[in-house]
Amino acid sequence: MYSFKNDYSEGAHPDILKSLVENNFDQQNGYGDDDYSLKAKECLKEKMNNPDASIYFVSGGTQANLLVISALLRSHEAVISAETGHVFANETGAIELTGHKVISVPTQNGKLTAADIQNTFDSYQLRPHVVKPKMVYISNSTEIGTFYNKAELLELAEICRSLNLFLFMDGARLGHALTATDNDLTLSDVSNLTDVFYVGGTKNGALFGEAIVFKNSQVCSEFDYILKQRGALLAKGRVLGIQFYELFKEDLYFVLAEKANKYAVQIAEAIKEAGYEFLTQSGTNQIFPILPKTVIASLHEKFAFYVWKEIDESKAAVRLITSWATDQKHVDEIIEDIKKSSISE
Amino acid sequence: MYSFKNDYSEGAHPDILKSLVENNFDQQNGYGDDDYSLKAKECLKEKMNNPDASIYFVSGGTQANLLVISALLRSHEAVISAETGHVFANETGAIELTGHKVISVPTQNGKLTAADIQNTFDSYQLRPHVVKPKMVYISNSTEIGTFYNKAELLELAEICRSLNLFLFMDGARLGHALTATDNDLTLSDVSNLTDVFYVGGTKNGALFGEAIVFKNSQVCSEFDYILKQRGALLAKGRVLGIQFYELFKEDLYFVLAEKANKYAVQIAEAIKEAGYEFLTQSGTNQIFPILPKTVIASLHEKFAFYVWKEIDESKAAVRLITSWATDQKHVDEIIEDIKKSSISE
Amino acid sequence: MYSFKNDYSEGAHPDILKSLVENNFDQQNGYGDDDYSLKAKECLKEKMNNPDASIYFVSGGTQANLLVISALLRSHEAVISAETGHVFANETGAIELTGHKVISVPTQNGKLTAADIQNTFDSYQLRPHVVKPKMVYISNSTEIGTFYNKAELLELAEICRSLNLFLFMDGARLGHALTATDNDLTLSDVSNLTDVFYVGGTKNGALFGEAIVFKNSQVCSEFDYILKQRGALLAKGRVLGIQFYELFKEDLYFVLAEKANKYAVQIAEAIKEAGYEFLTQSGTNQIFPILPKTVIASLHEKFAFYVWKEIDESKAAVRLITSWATDQKHVDEIIEDIKKSSISE
Amino acid sequence: MYSFKNDYSEGAHPDILKSLVENNFDQQNGYGDDDYSLKAKECLKEKMNNPDASIYFVSGGTQANLLVISALLRSHEAVISAETGHVFANETGAIELTGHKVISVPTQNGKLTAADIQNTFDSYQLRPHVVKPKMVYISNSTEIGTFYNKAELLELAEICRSLNLFLFMDGARLGHALTATDNDLTLSDVSNLTDVFYVGGTKNGALFGEAIVFKNSQVCSEFDYILKQRGALLAKGRVLGIQFYELFKEDLYFVLAEKANKYAVQIAEAIKEAGYEFLTQSGTNQIFPILPKTVIASLHEKFAFYVWKEIDESKAAVRLITSWATDQKHVDEIIEDIKKSSISE
Repeated sequence: MYSFKNDYSEGAHPDILKSLVENNFDQQNGYGDDDYSLKAKECLKEKMNNPDASIYFVSGGTQANLLVISALLRSHEAVISAETGHVFANETGAIELTGHKVISVPTQNGKLTAADIQNTFDSYQLRPHVVKPKMVYISNSTEIGTFYNKAELLELAEICRSLNLFLFMDGARLGHALTATDNDLTLSDVSNLTDVFYVGGTKNGALFGEAIVFKNSQVCSEFDYILKQRGALLAKGRVLGIQFYELFKEDLYFVLAEKANKYAVQIAEAIKEAGYEFLTQSGTNQIFPILPKTVIASLHEKFAFYVWKEIDESKAAVRLITSWATDQKHVDEIIEDIKKSSISE
Repeated sequence: MYSFKNDYSEGAHPDILKSLVENNFDQQNGYGDDDYSLKAKECLKEKMNNPDASIYFVSGGTQANLLVISALLRSHEAVISAETGHVFANETGAIELTGHKVISVPTQNGKLTAADIQNTFDSYQLRPHVVKPKMVYISNSTEIGTFYNKAELLELAEICRSLNLFLFMDGARLGHALTATDNDLTLSDVSNLTDVFYVGGTKNGALFGEAIVFKNSQVCSEFDYILKQRGALLAKGRVLGIQFYELFKEDLYFVLAEKANKYAVQIAEAIKEAGYEFLTQSGTNQIFPILPKTVIASLHEKFAFYVWKEIDESKAAVRLITSWATDQKHVDEIIEDIKKSSISE
Repeated sequence: MYSFKNDYSEGAHPDILKSLVENNFDQQNGYGDDDYSLKAKECLKEKMNNPDASIYFVSGGTQANLLVISALLRSHEAVISAETGHVFANETGAIELTGHKVISVPTQNGKLTAADIQNTFDSYQLRPHVVKPKMVYISNSTEIGTFYNKAELLELAEICRSLNLFLFMDGARLGHALTATDNDLTLSDVSNLTDVFYVGGTKNGALFGEAIVFKNSQVCSEFDYILKQRGALLAKGRVLGIQFYELFKEDLYFVLAEKANKYAVQIAEAIKEAGYEFLTQSGTNQIFPILPKTVIASLHEKFAFYVWKEIDESKAAVRLITSWATDQKHVDEIIEDIKKSSISE
Repeated sequence: MYSFKNDYSEGAHPDILKSLVENNFDQQNGYGDDDYSLKAKECLKEKMNNPDASIYFVSGGTQANLLVISALLRSHEAVISAETGHVFANETGAIELTGHKVISVPTQNGKLTAADIQNTFDSYQLRPHVVKPKMVYISNSTEIGTFYNKAELLELAEICRSLNLFLFMDGARLGHALTATDNDLTLSDVSNLTDVFYVGGTKNGALFGEAIVFKNSQVCSEFDYILKQRGALLAKGRVLGIQFYELFKEDLYFVLAEKANKYAVQIAEAIKEAGYEFLTQSGTNQIFPILPKTVIASLHEKFAFYVWKEIDESKAAVRLITSWATDQKHVDEIIEDIKKSSISE
């Protein structure tokens, strides 16, 4: 049984493990003051052309989200998110536990627009009886596989600046967004247009780890305290530093994401050719085809994946995810099976 | 420059890295539902003779502390800790951030007694104008190297039961406590006498990781939600499972801790023979000798360690920590240097 | 300019002020242990036929809501509310500040149904990635003037019991709900069918004050600590006790609410006769007629009230509120003016 | 049985009740936007010679403390308080519930000195493993009756400015401090030397109410949101406005406090003459004489008061509190009884 359930089913890219082994007995300072973390940060700053960036490594996405949001907002301030946004839909109220309302906005494709933000902002004016919107949260790529291009991010950056809102990008799958076919957005653009974002390692080849990047050190000058206080500061920060250095020193991060996207595109095209439709137009490593339930049952004999949403009595949307660890062999197999199923339909 | 600064200067025991490499491409479920985590939990339950134990793996000690305390206490309830306790002294107000007062108790040796608990409890009776003490937090071994034996833990368990207080043991250095010379306390005792404790991996051979153990599933039946909500649930829970399985499948955990203790004892004895005193009587892998400042300066030429506390104009207490990664060669070197310095004094 | 803006524009019913004056120099214990508070609680228990009720007096509605919700929910538990519910729409994120998500449900008339609750509950099953619904919050009367009758409340009580949810009624305008024409719901029913509710004093004749009523002392056995800890415990609790005793000793509370409702009905009927429609069917002291903007402008010359919602270019819904302090004279005046405006339209 | 237990046993000064009655039917805006609140604020600003002050009325002292502290501190920042400070000792962890550690400092007389602050600040330098001290909390008069004079407050203001700490004065009994014999501190000084303080109404003649005063509107520019969010914004803000206007329009506030102090001094002098000592040197309306237990028992037959602290087998310290409502007759009676008891001793 091969799994297309998610992009965190395997361990880490072998280069990362190799580096962990090689550097294992090198004594280092704890709590992120190790040479590897420093080197990884320098490398990241260079890749994003931003020497002023202020970078912190943490363990996971929900942790990154709650740290950033709670660090930047005062108690009566709220964050605006798409209804499908991870912070609204999938984090067990992590943001609310830090005291902040997440204002949800319905969207067609998981993406916010300037109009969404303006309208939401306008509807929260009854001071002091309502929260004050102070941050916009976007995921890139989104929870349903879509992504923001440069023009779209520019538009969001402008409305946020004009309304004095922080723009925060959840980059749990940033690699997949930036390497999506036709996306003109670069890491440097992201650093330039957001106030804070993170580079997701967990879903793109690391054992675990996200790199939180503040545009500069003024955005959140005492984030080190926040990390420690919320239990996010690893004693052996070296483990995060080594991983991010391996991912970025020679652009492995982008290579891995592009590979995952490529396989997803291959599968998506086979599905299209077989005559099936999609719940969303993806472009990244998550695709949501709508398949006959008979086909789903047949594929489930050899492949693990989630059924996402009932469409009607005979059809459902499923979610297929490829990753840095996916191989051509299994991609070819599922494509073959899709073709066969469609014929027998 | 060799470091005796702490027990998290290196990576992980090689067996752990080897297992991470070997199992790297085995696809597994996320969020702790992987085979390795399940196997590690079964192994731990067996080692502690407690089939009812409810176990969760998390990343670090401060995280474990804040998760456990916030999960078990209602908003007006407080935890009692020694003044030197990590939750009171070293966690940037992590417990207070979850809403709970940490009531501190001065101690001679970092350890709480039944009398301490009873007196503290008695002084918080002015309901509803004061918090309600509801938990006792102890570290074993403590932040200053001391440890609880079985009689002492029994005494605490009894007073806690009689006052209806949870007893929570921070086991960031549990291995060192349990393998200290003359300690008759066992892992099974700890599981039996506390309501919840954790087994520290970070400071005893893991890349990172602590295993939180509730006596049974009734103590905190919905802790899975809490983990997720506070950003402590790793997507690749396998990384924690693999590590704890390696540490416990053949008692590597105890072997490593005993080795660290052994080296600390060797150094401590050399210091004693050289005629110096100690700030605390340790017994574990942290020792606090009081040395002439000239000796400290001389040792600092070859060894890194922290100066803990000024004693007088000419003397200071220092902290020397050994670990699973310490080797005999460097222990012999520092012993040699201590002997030399004492002669030249 | 006479105001129909809200039901808290005046001070208190004269009987309350009289009693405050008469009892002013009687020395009493602080913090709610005064004779007046005890007497008021006994009186309330009798009126609701519930000797087991556990009653606490607090200053206002938002305070009551945040106290009750935070006291009953564990950190990962959430409350379900209508989208128009005060806790979702009008309290500046007060509930989120206590750490809890408010799950909002769109409704036609501000009221939740059993189906709403079941559907919402069903959509929060992805444990542990989503919050756990644990409470249903309803307002009675609602923020848009509607109310629950006995059959409706029974239905909610049943679904809540079957799903193990607390049922909490915000009774900021409970008097108006219970005395609405055709409502068969009684105070005793409310105490019997909810786990906790409160009796709003602020909007029905008190200077300030809400009486929180737990069905019995087991629902929240240590609520006294919570009150103190959140700054809600008045030193001179007597001020609340005296007020609630005056309101309930001879049913003044119901007399005042009924009077407010009566005036609202008079105005509503005049508006209906004048040919205008309503945004919601009220029944209580808040009505939401849809009026031509010319009529609104004309009425605004003599009366203060809020424009609630733009309907189209020429029409808007307004909110008119009557209260215990409203008098027939001004009601007659606005009715007269409505009649005139409709003719000149 | 006449009570000297506290200064909140009675209702309000008759002038306040009279004004509440007279203005009862005057329709006003809600939530503090009423004419009375505006007038009271103007009056207070004038009395403190500070046109820039930003003033908010709330219900009680614990509420004022938690609002101010949580509004001004970021999550990792802490407040320094005397061990006897209300926020440390008497508020059920209210400050910790808002997420902040209260760092306690032992004192002889309930008062902090510049040296206390400097030493505490210096001991919290291990960033990021400890909280960051960011505020100093003092009570004036203190919980044990002592008070700060101008030179002392100047010293605190200077150290706070030099260490970049907010200086916050809890003025629950500010009137008693400012009118204490020999105190040269004025309301204007307090406004000038602190960043924020409050003027306590509850313990000096109001039904309830404290006036929080920020030095200017920049100290906390969005405090209105905080008030609402924490349930502290009364719908009928008029009730607070009317009370503070009555207290300050003709300095009734100071007259009442001075009267309370005067009676306390009379009693204290009688006690001194009778040959007894005191736990603290007070100067305000709280005195703590040390009396033989036989005398205590005898006084308890006619007077209610708290036994504060056991001194030895035969003696205990008691707390006697006078207030705006105390009368000469009962003061004379207790003095008489003290004299008699001392003779019969």
